Amino acid sequence: MNVKEQLLKYARMTENALGKYIPSADCPQKSVIDAARYSLSAGGKRLRPALVMEFCRVCGGKPETALPVACAIEMMHTFSLIHDDLPCMDNDDLRRGKPSCHKAFGEATALLAGDALAIMPFEVIAKAGLDKTISAEDALKISALLAELAGFEGMIGGQTLDLEYENKQPPLSAIVDMYNMKTCALLEFCCKAGCIAAGADESKQDAAGKFGRSIGLAFQITDDILDITADEKTLGKPIGSDKENGKYTYVSAVGIDKAREHVKQLTAEAKEFLNEFSDTEFLNGLAGMLAERSN
Amino acid sequence: MNVKEQLLKYARMTENALGKYIPSADCPQKSVIDAARYSLSAGGKRLRPALVMEFCRVCGGKPETALPVACAIEMMHTFSLIHDDLPCMDNDDLRRGKPSCHKAFGEATALLAGDALAIMPFEVIAKAGLDKTISAEDALKISALLAELAGFEGMIGGQTLDLEYENKQPPLSAIVDMYNMKTCALLEFCCKAGCIAAGADESKQDAAGKFGRSIGLAFQITDDILDITADEKTLGKPIGSDKENGKYTYVSAVGIDKAREHVKQLTAEAKEFLNEFSDTEFLNGLAGMLAERSN
Repeated sequence: MNVKEQLLKYARMTENALGKYIPSADCPQKSVIDAARYSLSAGGKRLRPALVMEFCRVCGGKPETALPVACAIEMMHTFSLIHDDLPCMDNDDLRRGKPSCHKAFGEATALLAGDALAIMPFEVIAKAGLDKTISAEDALKISALLAELAGFEGMIGGQTLDLEYENKQPPLSAIVDMYNMKTCALLEFCCKAGCIAAGADESKQDAAGKFGRSIGLAFQITDDILDITADEKTLGKPIGSDKENGKYTYVSAVGIDKAREHVKQLTAEAKEFLNEFSDTEFLNGLAGMLAERSN
Repeated sequence: MNVKEQLLKYARMTENALGKYIPSADCPQKSVIDAARYSLSAGGKRLRPALVMEFCRVCGGKPETALPVACAIEMMHTFSLIHDDLPCMDNDDLRRGKPSCHKAFGEATALLAGDALAIMPFEVIAKAGLDKTISAEDALKISALLAELAGFEGMIGGQTLDLEYENKQPPLSAIVDMYNMKTCALLEFCCKAGCIAAGADESKQDAAGKFGRSIGLAFQITDDILDITADEKTLGKPIGSDKENGKYTYVSAVGIDKAREHVKQLTAEAKEFLNEFSDTEFLNGLAGMLAERSN
């Protein structure tokens, strides 16, 4: 099993499908559509769609069944990146080595492109239920779960905490809570939603959700580490931005060595949750790869 | 039939339910929840929820059945107002006589509150399907319709055009297209969604949607008229803001007298679409009231 190759295969499926959901259009509101397409096609590992499709597969479904949900979560993730980069938020000029959306299209258009990408996931999921790609009941469950984990108690709650904690030194537990909401919630969604799309039972959904949370926390801590140790070219954005933005991170709280150790622990924990499933070579490999990534 | 009283009754139902969907919470991310509650409770006519519940009623359903959908559309509408007021958009300090959300809570928190209010409608609708308030199929239809009419081809597309046309003199047809997307799309949603919640057939949904579009256009043109003729205190915001913001409106294009005439025509047209329904005293009265409003 070549993990990178399989990840790339899922990424290509996702990118093809995303291009069809938002075709380039020659209409008066072209600018906002172009801005959304720009950010959606800016690359990245497409980790979230891969998790959705792979959990569907290990639960006995076809990856294609979960493709609409995979696209939905990539739209939601992209919305969060566009708004996160805005001047009133992190004010980042670069994203994956390219100008961020508002640098390329202006602030208002970026705002609106993000807005549309926060809404469209629910159209995609609802239509997958209406055209029977997934059952109506499952589409509603996935839709409710996405909204919950993206909203006040999930990602957006976490982004709020990220702002609240700027230029402060919150206790480690508060940092972990913030990461859990900001990053882990959507990864929990991906893993659970893949199971739901395959019609898997609650114990599988539960284990998948825990796997998502564990790799999510490991992922976010690795981000903190890379912000200090990475090569700027490999990372695609300036290093040291956390400190510059007054962000007290997991690494600030426990130091790099302990942070690295915790990433290993969390990754090992994540792999244990996979015991609920069979044929998990890709998921095991992916968890390992994420813990050792350099960008 | 006292139209104002019935409108107030629907408004109270909506406000009660909204308070339960987003209870005030003593959690670390309190600021974003408070910001959302602030804007949601800022008042207004609650026209959209009333349309949802009344169309459900005239199609033989209970208004309460459509209450979750009524709350969902009020959240979506409120999200659009919060983001519309942001400095990178219309940069409005006042909304309904009170400081706009970003003036009261800061730009980042307002951005995030808007984001959460764009997402939560889909949670509310999905859960109404899961708890069988409406059928699963109808919940999916309503969810897909809301996303379509709020997204690139609807409200957000229209807001994009609003920006594109700043300091320009677009032809009247372009202004009408912009209003149709920016304002009429969500009103079409309200009327159609009420019918869907009641299980009404497509010809009723279609007539309701057309009623929504006609009163929507009349509503937006009346907004343009009031921006010139209203009393600032009654309107709750500064008059003359369109001109100041470089906005060329329907009134700029045809003049106040013709604009008033068109509002009357559109209102008469709207009332004709009500022939598809019986017991339409409230809807008829509402259409008339909107055409003659002073704020």
